[in-house]
Amino acid sequence: MSKFEYPQEIKRTIEALSKAESFKAVWHRQNPDQPMPSVAEMRALVDLMREILFPGYFGSSSTRPDSVKYYIGVNVERLYDKLRHQIYAGLCFGCGDPDSMDSDKAKARAAELSVKFIEQLPEIRQVLATDVEAAFLGDPAAQSREEVIFCYPAIRAITNYRIAHALYELKVPLLPRIITEMAHSETGIDIHPRARIGHSFTIDHGTGVVIGATSIIGNNVKIYQGVTLGAKSFPLDEQGNPIKGIERHPIVEDNVIIYAQATILGRITIGANSVIGGNVWITSDVAPNSKVVQERYRFGGFVWGDGI
Amino acid sequence: MSKFEYPQEIKRTIEALSKAESFKAVWHRQNPDQPMPSVAEMRALVDLMREILFPGYFGSSSTRPDSVKYYIGVNVERLYDKLRHQIYAGLCFGCGDPDSMDSDKAKARAAELSVKFIEQLPEIRQVLATDVEAAFLGDPAAQSREEVIFCYPAIRAITNYRIAHALYELKVPLLPRIITEMAHSETGIDIHPRARIGHSFTIDHGTGVVIGATSIIGNNVKIYQGVTLGAKSFPLDEQGNPIKGIERHPIVEDNVIIYAQATILGRITIGANSVIGGNVWITSDVAPNSKVVQERYRFGGFVWGDGI
Amino acid sequence: MSKFEYPQEIKRTIEALSKAESFKAVWHRQNPDQPMPSVAEMRALVDLMREILFPGYFGSSSTRPDSVKYYIGVNVERLYDKLRHQIYAGLCFGCGDPDSMDSDKAKARAAELSVKFIEQLPEIRQVLATDVEAAFLGDPAAQSREEVIFCYPAIRAITNYRIAHALYELKVPLLPRIITEMAHSETGIDIHPRARIGHSFTIDHGTGVVIGATSIIGNNVKIYQGVTLGAKSFPLDEQGNPIKGIERHPIVEDNVIIYAQATILGRITIGANSVIGGNVWITSDVAPNSKVVQERYRFGGFVWGDGI
Amino acid sequence: MSKFEYPQEIKRTIEALSKAESFKAVWHRQNPDQPMPSVAEMRALVDLMREILFPGYFGSSSTRPDSVKYYIGVNVERLYDKLRHQIYAGLCFGCGDPDSMDSDKAKARAAELSVKFIEQLPEIRQVLATDVEAAFLGDPAAQSREEVIFCYPAIRAITNYRIAHALYELKVPLLPRIITEMAHSETGIDIHPRARIGHSFTIDHGTGVVIGATSIIGNNVKIYQGVTLGAKSFPLDEQGNPIKGIERHPIVEDNVIIYAQATILGRITIGANSVIGGNVWITSDVAPNSKVVQERYRFGGFVWGDGI
Amino acid sequence: MSKFEYPQEIKRTIEALSKAESFKAVWHRQNPDQPMPSVAEMRALVDLMREILFPGYFGSSSTRPDSVKYYIGVNVERLYDKLRHQIYAGLCFGCGDPDSMDSDKAKARAAELSVKFIEQLPEIRQVLATDVEAAFLGDPAAQSREEVIFCYPAIRAITNYRIAHALYELKVPLLPRIITEMAHSETGIDIHPRARIGHSFTIDHGTGVVIGATSIIGNNVKIYQGVTLGAKSFPLDEQGNPIKGIERHPIVEDNVIIYAQATILGRITIGANSVIGGNVWITSDVAPNSKVVQERYRFGGFVWGDGI
Amino acid sequence: MSKFEYPQEIKRTIEALSKAESFKAVWHRQNPDQPMPSVAEMRALVDLMREILFPGYFGSSSTRPDSVKYYIGVNVERLYDKLRHQIYAGLCFGCGDPDSMDSDKAKARAAELSVKFIEQLPEIRQVLATDVEAAFLGDPAAQSREEVIFCYPAIRAITNYRIAHALYELKVPLLPRIITEMAHSETGIDIHPRARIGHSFTIDHGTGVVIGATSIIGNNVKIYQGVTLGAKSFPLDEQGNPIKGIERHPIVEDNVIIYAQATILGRITIGANSVIGGNVWITSDVAPNSKVVQERYRFGGFVWGDGI
Repeated sequence: MSKFEYPQEIKRTIEALSKAESFKAVWHRQNPDQPMPSVAEMRALVDLMREILFPGYFGSSSTRPDSVKYYIGVNVERLYDKLRHQIYAGLCFGCGDPDSMDSDKAKARAAELSVKFIEQLPEIRQVLATDVEAAFLGDPAAQSREEVIFCYPAIRAITNYRIAHALYELKVPLLPRIITEMAHSETGIDIHPRARIGHSFTIDHGTGVVIGATSIIGNNVKIYQGVTLGAKSFPLDEQGNPIKGIERHPIVEDNVIIYAQATILGRITIGANSVIGGNVWITSDVAPNSKVVQERYRFGGFVWGDGI
Repeated sequence: MSKFEYPQEIKRTIEALSKAESFKAVWHRQNPDQPMPSVAEMRALVDLMREILFPGYFGSSSTRPDSVKYYIGVNVERLYDKLRHQIYAGLCFGCGDPDSMDSDKAKARAAELSVKFIEQLPEIRQVLATDVEAAFLGDPAAQSREEVIFCYPAIRAITNYRIAHALYELKVPLLPRIITEMAHSETGIDIHPRARIGHSFTIDHGTGVVIGATSIIGNNVKIYQGVTLGAKSFPLDEQGNPIKGIERHPIVEDNVIIYAQATILGRITIGANSVIGGNVWITSDVAPNSKVVQERYRFGGFVWGDGI
Repeated sequence: MSKFEYPQEIKRTIEALSKAESFKAVWHRQNPDQPMPSVAEMRALVDLMREILFPGYFGSSSTRPDSVKYYIGVNVERLYDKLRHQIYAGLCFGCGDPDSMDSDKAKARAAELSVKFIEQLPEIRQVLATDVEAAFLGDPAAQSREEVIFCYPAIRAITNYRIAHALYELKVPLLPRIITEMAHSETGIDIHPRARIGHSFTIDHGTGVVIGATSIIGNNVKIYQGVTLGAKSFPLDEQGNPIKGIERHPIVEDNVIIYAQATILGRITIGANSVIGGNVWITSDVAPNSKVVQERYRFGGFVWGDGI
Repeated sequence: MSKFEYPQEIKRTIEALSKAESFKAVWHRQNPDQPMPSVAEMRALVDLMREILFPGYFGSSSTRPDSVKYYIGVNVERLYDKLRHQIYAGLCFGCGDPDSMDSDKAKARAAELSVKFIEQLPEIRQVLATDVEAAFLGDPAAQSREEVIFCYPAIRAITNYRIAHALYELKVPLLPRIITEMAHSETGIDIHPRARIGHSFTIDHGTGVVIGATSIIGNNVKIYQGVTLGAKSFPLDEQGNPIKGIERHPIVEDNVIIYAQATILGRITIGANSVIGGNVWITSDVAPNSKVVQERYRFGGFVWGDGI
Repeated sequence: MSKFEYPQEIKRTIEALSKAESFKAVWHRQNPDQPMPSVAEMRALVDLMREILFPGYFGSSSTRPDSVKYYIGVNVERLYDKLRHQIYAGLCFGCGDPDSMDSDKAKARAAELSVKFIEQLPEIRQVLATDVEAAFLGDPAAQSREEVIFCYPAIRAITNYRIAHALYELKVPLLPRIITEMAHSETGIDIHPRARIGHSFTIDHGTGVVIGATSIIGNNVKIYQGVTLGAKSFPLDEQGNPIKGIERHPIVEDNVIIYAQATILGRITIGANSVIGGNVWITSDVAPNSKVVQERYRFGGFVWGDGI
Repeated sequence: MSKFEYPQEIKRTIEALSKAESFKAVWHRQNPDQPMPSVAEMRALVDLMREILFPGYFGSSSTRPDSVKYYIGVNVERLYDKLRHQIYAGLCFGCGDPDSMDSDKAKARAAELSVKFIEQLPEIRQVLATDVEAAFLGDPAAQSREEVIFCYPAIRAITNYRIAHALYELKVPLLPRIITEMAHSETGIDIHPRARIGHSFTIDHGTGVVIGATSIIGNNVKIYQGVTLGAKSFPLDEQGNPIKGIERHPIVEDNVIIYAQATILGRITIGANSVIGGNVWITSDVAPNSKVVQERYRFGGFVWGDGI
């Protein structure tokens, strides 16, 4: 074999991988005249929103009072242009027949959705300010509100969630999920964009937190690492597919604290002002003002080869 | 002190850090004629494999039927060249005496292993298609199979695992671990490349999942965030080193569901069709068709200073 | 509307977001003559320290005995220049009145702190060597010490912690937190820089581990994924702010092992040589040499719609 | 002045620069729904064409006979997508009223022009092969044809010219000029895309060569550095604007050599097989088979202060 | 020799190159507390100025009338911060004793110079508009003013010159030269920042143009490629160093055209409305309204081996 | 046509371009086990050499006397590793049969050549110091030697030449040409690596300078922009190929000055201490101590349409 050839196995594998039947189940067909949604672009977009929402912390925003308005102006315009591009890119992702999309209508729709989203930014900033305050007051180790905004993964995750939720409510497809998964990857906090969460929400440490799609969380709620607000199993339709849209996750009322690793499943209600201890498994309602903890541990419960 | 000098303490520290006895326990000596394994390169390699396995989703692959074969051809050739380079780089990483390596033999071995791995790609794609299907059917919040492939961290982690496992079976050193740790960092899902996992495997949310080296998982298994398939303590040899290669992780049979935060330790078997509730600690066999849950929680179990 | 204009809603939103009352709670004002602390720079700095501490593994360090000293020399000098820049940048982050800072004094202070930190690098390397050894001996799946240093997330997280702790002890603001959050994001391991941890410390898998600010950990301790050393609730001062600096996290004595997902809260002591089983919730002292596990699970504890 | 404000002069200058009358003569208004032409993108596009035309030299093209077709396939598809994007971007650059453009028609036109251009690539490659051969035969210092293709600025400039000329002939606006200016900047060779040039064309060294818009060059012509084929002055229309499109540059017939720094101006003809010596100034026809040189220099023609 | 060592010659060369006497003539000592001037930063700075001067062409400036002011605001503030940083970096470059610099005074000086420069931007824009107009009117091949601004190397070079000249007049060291050399490298046009040039100045093609430090050019002057406005030899002082600051380059009065490759040396005057033909060598005054051309060429002036 | 297909013309063009007969004249076949020479890598390499030769100016070299040796050590080691890699890559570029190369021998040869080159760096630095001095003394506009090293294109071009010449003398193929072409592109100065040039060499401005392969230049020579030291036509061998290696370029003796745009062709000698005026064309010997200038220009030599 000359050095210039590669092995027959490689050639055969290329053939095998190029056959339509090999890739038909895992192939994405995007209309080539439409941009592909881009996780990298979405990351830049979310960074841009963070820069708009928290002036002076991220990106290269000015910290001079004289010029804040210039930065906001430039950044909001960029947001408008990039966001409608990405919304347009995602409009027919997974829609079955990309050939069918009317691209002019889709572009107009994307522009309209972008405007509606941008209008909500002042309100999103306002509720995030309550989350920052709650995180600062809730953590004796926090040095300043600035440190909370700049460093705390929970603020990062909640910001992504609040952005994603606003897009979700506008029925923008795909992007909300990309935005919350981005935070999930960076912080280990997985909040479904459909969940509804009140003001002054805090998550401490946060790794492993899961908040499912139909969860409803009141105001002043605090959640620790590893807490799950999840679903029990779910009914299937006649074709064996899960029935979409059923309310299947918990309702957590105002002023609840849930400690680390608690798993709370199903459409149950954790009553206001309750405290849920760590590592418990809860699948039925908890009355308001309750405190619940795990059954006490045992001693000597298992044996290792020859101990440690 | 002139502005051009730096403090004596810096000079002394450089001396201290440069002494062989200071770094001998934490120094890596790579043959300078051999490339260093590179996490950045491995990341690019795994991205390339993802692009090959799921055409049209990642990278810049075409989404036109006419040209898929060109992209597959280019990408597989690149994979062949980059992979054998990295395998060669890792062949004597940690082998004790890098001076001893015969570089021609090592290169030939790396090429041969690359070919053997590449030949498995069609099969890896096929089993990943079953994982995608399982994730889609198992999540009422999933909008489309496209969304699952594009966004779900579990698919990303399982893809890395299936690639790493194939390399592990070929006895490629180091790289399998790098590949699964990459997914671990991005998704919080830590699957050892040695583990054996059947088709139609799903992980939901996933952060905190640990699947140990000698675990065996059947078909149609579903695991939630925070689940551990781990080992109890392990025997040491006469030098006090752990004895390698003992089967010490669980066997999970077909159609099992394990809920969030369950910890399952040791070479035990979770029988087929069982459901394991969240937050339980299991160190002995569970019979097929079982449902097990945590002992019910108590109320009022602990007292805070002055409550919340 | 001409194509060149954007919608009135965008203009109005720019106005709304640019009003001082809209951003005053979430705005950062940095002295424009002082650099902004930079997470990207801090990442590069920590990479540089890793390169210094573990020669030959990271960056482009030589692996030739002849030239290690050149690389150490260049890298320590770079560290000195970059670190004092970042310390200076962070000195008045969140200090209330950036106008008040004397920049010459602040620069001198930053240089002095950098020197004091750099002097500790040889010692940090020494204790990290014990952590590497413990990780290697504690994991039967580890192939070599090289693999542990190169791949294990726990070593990455513990390295960041030991660097951050040294900076914390020097009272460097902000940066310690950035450094541990960096590891938190990459590995899911969240160790507060204030925590005190002995030698030969290991974390296995690690995702979800939380070690709170006032925790004290002895020597030869091993912790698995999902373990929390946390605080119970904490007293507030008269203004309703949490009282800072109270010792509120556990003490873990020498030779303790804590299994996955255990949650240990409050200023309690886990006595030496104890083994804590997974998924337990502990809020009071555990005597030395204890083994504790979760109460045994129940069968059939909850009902799904129609099973799985 | 607080540190947070900037000087009044800056504010005033921002006002001054933002007034419409200040920028109206130097402002570009692009339809915001249309991409901006991008020099960086055009650079990437020309690199892509070079990779297609000269397989194995540039980019990451394979050098294996088995896989050349995959690379050509991928690269031509990318070229098609990127080129029509840039043509579309340039279609109304400088057209006066960007609002007037029908974007669907413009996109279709851009696609059509891209196809017509791509069809010419095989022919462009063929004529470039004659240029490479001429450069190799014409330079005793050339080591191999490979070196000529890989290193010679003239081949780079002529490639850009031949690409730009094909686009110019298709009446693609703006891009041809960007492409030849790119070569001008890199090589100092300035060939107008409208010029017509035969096969086996060589330029030696090349810096300072200028070939004007209406020049016509035959086959087997060789030109040295600093040669100008330019225009004399040109007539103006009634508004004082230069009249466009007049043939005002030289015709150079087959087999002519023009030595360094010769300046040849106006619609004159340099007859076949002539040799033009360096540094001459020619503004009228030269008969075929002529050899012309500068009038002989004088001695002692000028005096420096006190000599050198 | 072990694979881990490198040859003795390398070690010896490192020693040789590290000896102070080896590098003392070619070493730069910068105060380590002061930034190093950066060509890359200067490139970014000039790009930023181009974006400010020509809105909508370069960078990512808006092309919407509504938002131009935001972009100008952001860009001018960035310019202010970056420019004073670079001016400060260059203030003691080559000043002999970097230790001697008072850094607070130097910073204040840099800020003051930046403000003075920025104030001139509106005027610079105005005169550049006349240059653009002249280039457009002077080139029958120009399609539009937009094309001239976007593509013409002369506009790029003249912009750099006008910026550099303003900085030169403010006595900013080093940076003016960096800025004109940047244009020199990109366009082959070398204009000394000290030269004085009137409005409506054009250079056609431009490669090889040299305009020396003490040149004075009137209004409406046009220069072709390869034209030199240079100095004859210059007097030396008693130490043999050239005497600085003598007026030694030509004066070119209004409405002059100079054709390609003309070389004009010494403090002579080319009178108004003159036309200088290409390739001439002029070292004495030319009266107004003159037309001068090279002596006519000869035929058959030299002999090649056997012709061409 | 579905949106997912591209036009038939594209498909046909891919076929046409992929046929071996289409690309055989312009195809490069590199041994796939050997790296491709890389212009980007060579650029980095030359930057590295510049950093070594002129400490403190380029790259991130220290400017502290204490640490210069560390930077030299690191940079020389990097140079050794990168240079032998590139030499190896170029060894069989254009050698006809890449299959024939013995890669172990080629690698050893590349290492040996790298060592021999590196040994010459101290001497190269020494002669470059004379060039810097000559440029500084020869230009009244030069502010300092630092400015000359940092900004002057001639120093950049001469540095590249002196590096390339040393490699050329060691018979390293391809790379010398790449290195001088790099300078050619950046500065417009084209010096063939084979030319021999004495110490204290200066080029002023430089654009358009050409120094041919067999030129010999003495000490203290100064050359202005646009000067050519070229060849007349050259004899062909029996196959019509140019005969390689004939001495065909000028000899320029010590202390000569050549003014702008002079063209000097053939194996002639410009005697010591001569001054050559600009724009002359010289094809025969000039005696030592001569001053030669162009024949005086004429007035009114040509007529434009209606003047200017």
